Order: sequence, then C-alpha cells, then structure tokens
Amino acid sequence: MSSATLGLDIGGTKIASGLVGLDGTVAEADATPTLGSGRQVVDQVAEIIDTYRTRHPIDTVGLAVPGGVDPRTGIITAAPNLAWLGLDLADRLHTHLPSSIFVHVDNDAGAAAWAEHRFGRHRDGDSLLLVTVGTGLGGGVVANGALVRGFTGAGGEIGHLPLLPGGRTCECGSHGCWEQYASGQALHRAAQAAGWDTATAGYDILRAAHQGDSEAADVVAGVAAHLVHGIMILTAILDPARVLLGGGLGTDPLFHFFVQEAAAQAELTPPRARVPLHPASLGVMAGVIGAADLARHATCGIATRA
Amino acid sequence: MSSATLGLDIGGTKIASGLVGLDGTVAEADATPTLGSGRQVVDQVAEIIDTYRTRHPIDTVGLAVPGGVDPRTGIITAAPNLAWLGLDLADRLHTHLPSSIFVHVDNDAGAAAWAEHRFGRHRDGDSLLLVTVGTGLGGGVVANGALVRGFTGAGGEIGHLPLLPGGRTCECGSHGCWEQYASGQALHRAAQAAGWDTATAGYDILRAAHQGDSEAADVVAGVAAHLVHGIMILTAILDPARVLLGGGLGTDPLFHFFVQEAAAQAELTPPRARVPLHPASLGVMAGVIGAADLARHATCGIATRA
Repeated sequence: MSSATLGLDIGGTKIASGLVGLDGTVAEADATPTLGSGRQVVDQVAEIIDTYRTRHPIDTVGLAVPGGVDPRTGIITAAPNLAWLGLDLADRLHTHLPSSIFVHVDNDAGAAAWAEHRFGRHRDGDSLLLVTVGTGLGGGVVANGALVRGFTGAGGEIGHLPLLPGGRTCECGSHGCWEQYASGQALHRAAQAAGWDTATAGYDILRAAHQGDSEAADVVAGVAAHLVHGIMILTAILDPARVLLGGGLGTDPLFHFFVQEAAAQAELTPPRARVPLHPASLGVMAGVIGAADLARHATCGIATRA
Repeated sequence: MSSATLGLDIGGTKIASGLVGLDGTVAEADATPTLGSGRQVVDQVAEIIDTYRTRHPIDTVGLAVPGGVDPRTGIITAAPNLAWLGLDLADRLHTHLPSSIFVHVDNDAGAAAWAEHRFGRHRDGDSLLLVTVGTGLGGGVVANGALVRGFTGAGGEIGHLPLLPGGRTCECGSHGCWEQYASGQALHRAAQAAGWDTATAGYDILRAAHQGDSEAADVVAGVAAHLVHGIMILTAILDPARVLLGGGLGTDPLFHFFVQEAAAQAELTPPRARVPLHPASLGVMAGVIGAADLARHATCGIATRA
C-alpha cells in the first residue's frame, strides 16, 4: 500500500481531517470539536495524526490554520482563536512524530482557495479569487497558478481591506474593514437594526427578503452591495479567471441571488466586462483538501509559488 | 558580437527605447514623439526597431504598451491613446521584421513593475507593488516572483479600483475610481477648487504646502490620504515585500513626504505593521527595461508566470 497524504483544517471550534488523494477526493473524513487553545490543541492535532497513522502509512501532513503563516519560516504570525502566535507548528509536532513525516502549515482560507483552484467545479485558467462569507469574511487569491501568501504570510487577508477607513470598529483593532460591512455578522447586525430581534436575525431577514418583504430585501441588498464593492476592488487589481463565494452565507442560494443582483448593477471598468461569480463547490472539506495538496506539492518540489 | 535585447515603451506622447543588458542596464537610450495613432504608430515602431537593427544583431524585442494585453494571445484588449484595440502587435510587426526576431508585448505599468522588481534599488523578496502616480494613476503587481497580468490582461489596473462607488466620473466610464482621488489630475483639480487658479496649480499647491501654507498642506494631505487608502487596500490583499511610488508626482520628494505622513497615520491590520514605502528608482526607462527583460525571459522559457 502506498503512503497517503493527510489534511487537517484546524478551526477555533472544530478540527476537520481526511486522507486526500491526488485527485482531491477525501477518504476517512472526520471532524471533532477543538479542545481549548494553545498547547492543548497542538496535542490534540498530534493525537488525530496518530489515529490516522495507526491505520495508514502517512508520509505527508498538510495543516490549515486560522491565521497567518510566514511562508519563509512556517511560523504562525497570527492565530488569535488558538493563541498560536509565534508557534512553529511543524517543528512542535515533530516532537511527537517521526522526522520522516513531512509537515506543511498554511493559512486555512488560502488552502481552501487552492483546493477550489485545483479541484473545484468552477476552476478555470491559472487564477481564482475565493471570498469566504461566513460569520466573518476571508478568502484566498491564486494568481499565475500559485497561492498568493504575501511577504509575511498576510496575503489574502481580504476581510480586513479598509473599505471605509475610519468606519466601524473591527475586532482586528482597525476601523472600516470590509468584514464589518459584508459578512454573516454584518447581516445579523443590519437585521437587528431593522427590527429583526432574534438570535437568527440574519437568516430570518434573508428568508423574509426572499418571500417578498421589501424592507428585508433592502437590508440584504445593502450587505450584498458592500460585498460586491470589495469584489470589484479585487477584480480590478487581480483580474481573476473566476470569483467564488464560499462560506455558509456565501454559498446560501438566497444570499447568492442578492449578490448576483448587486454585481449586475455594479459598474465595471473595461476591458473586463463581467467576471463570472460562482458558489464555491468543495464545501467544508476545502481546507482539508487544500492543506493536503499544498503539502504534497511542497514535497514534490512542484512550485506552488514561482 | 552577441545578439541584443531591445526594449520599447510606447506611450501616447513619446516612444522610449534602448538596448537592455542582462543586468538591466540600458545602452543607446532614445526617445521620440509618438506620431498619431493606429497604423501610423505601428510603422513608427517598426522604423525604430530597424534603426537599432542597422547597428546591432537584435534577436529579441520587448514592447510596453499603454493598455491591456491578453496574456494568452498577445492581442491588445485596450489602448485608447493609440487606437490599438484588437491589435496583434507582434504579428503585425512581423510583416516588417524577420520571423527569427522574437517580439513580446506587455502592459507598460506591468513592465515597469517588473523592472523595479528585477533591478530596482528597493527590490526585496519575490513580491512588489508599484503605484505610478503621474497625471493618472496606474501600477503593477509582482507576486510569487511573477507579474500578475490577470486572466484577460486587465490585472494590475489598480487606478480603476472603485474607491468610492458612485463617486466622481472617470474617463473609463465608471465612477469613483481611485485615480479620480489620487493622481496628478486629482491634485490639480483639488488645488483649483482651493483657489490656485493656474495651469500648474498642482505643483504650485505642493510648493506652498511645503513652505508652510496650512491650507495648501490640507489639500495635499487629502490627496495623499486617498492615495494611502488605496495602498492599504492593496497591501491587505497582497502583502507585498515593498510598495514603490513611481511617476512624476509619486517620485516628487515633496509629495512623497505627505504620503509618508498619511501612511504613518493610517490604520493597518495586524500582523503586518508597516509595509515599506519607497520611491521607484528606475525613472523613465523602467518600461523599456521591463519590456526587454520580460521578452528575454519569455524566450528563455524561464517562467515569468508560474
């Protein structure tokens, strides 16, 4: 039996994992709640890897983490949900694992973008922009067939581009970040401000909008317009082959309808008349698939960055 | 004598040219006014190439053009100043030139960014953002050691990112483009609105601001703040090793001072505390150098895109 590539997507609330094939298919997919933060989670990750190792001859592990990873050193430069700042995760895991096992660490949203670029239904050309609209807003950029990690690993932090400088306070410490205007949280807040006084205000207003409530439709359209504003900025800079919307809200068909409406109304600069906008197709396993595939490419010496 | 690489930077008002060495040095630099547009300029370009060919065994020609170039076909997708829409410039020139001469066409701002990345004083790492602030606003993006041309050749059209959608009318047909708020033209208009009623209002207000005129300083600072807003957007997405300011206004030391002030005051998202901001160092020959070097790389099979 040949050796296998394992992917883990380590989030603040759960850790998804699976064996990823050369074609991006996933076997033995699993997900488990994240236990605490810091060293606890490192130990948990090591245990998950060991569980797979008892059953398969794993030689390569790809880890997706919710934060920045310095592409030159592999050191985590930011991961507030896990308190992993400054951690060399691959090095730390090698105190548990044989040194023959190759461990690669990358940003989760970047890994998801890479997976969509390599294996997604709407892949095309050598570039892609993934905009992940969940509770927050994130994403990843593939250009010239390579993941754009940036000089310090902060590339692709699109949720924090300053859409309206001096605007709403963001958890990152800045003001006016795109995420504050176009995300599940932003929709929820806008719904509450419009009188939807429920814990599920964001989804309630979305349903109401779809059922013809014009006030609800205005609120949703406003959030969609902010989302499209950022996408138009990204498109002007990157001219990607495809723009994909991922995340719970981004792949919601009701919301997607409002985003397409907003995109149809937005002004675009020639020569690019329209950039195709699609829902992401790999779902919750995108991070697992991308992390494993990026790790495998790193072992092959195949350039994932030129 | 070995064969040489010729670079031409074809603008709406002048055509710069020179023989470009492997180290980016330029020999026999020249510049001549552009004659008209359309086929006239194609003939003029052919004549300039022939002039160099009478003196040197040229085998490679790189052309920088003020417009988009489809990276898959080499066809010009936009070049309003030259009326070259739809032109296959390399193919057309081969009706004059031997087929053994390799001709490569690229966008002028992208070529300049490539030149700064390869040979500029402030090159570092494998990424760079060039923001060219002249009469208008343009630039180029290098990521993962490759020029970001985009899927249709419209990549790097940063001057037309929608900074304020629905804002000032832009010549591109859209509204609120960054260029309308941060460019020589924008400074000139802001100066005129503030009462500097001269043909050189932009430069006059810059000088006045530097000499301590606080009203003038406010106007210049406003334009600088808009410039920095866009740079912060680009930095959040790309996390480049360096940001360079090019163009007449971008490399003006007085203006650069105000930009640095605005950058120091701008909020940045962790983990990237500060992106170094420098003036571009290759001056007016950057396009010539970059066009020639990109052409040479294309002949070598060295990947300028991964």
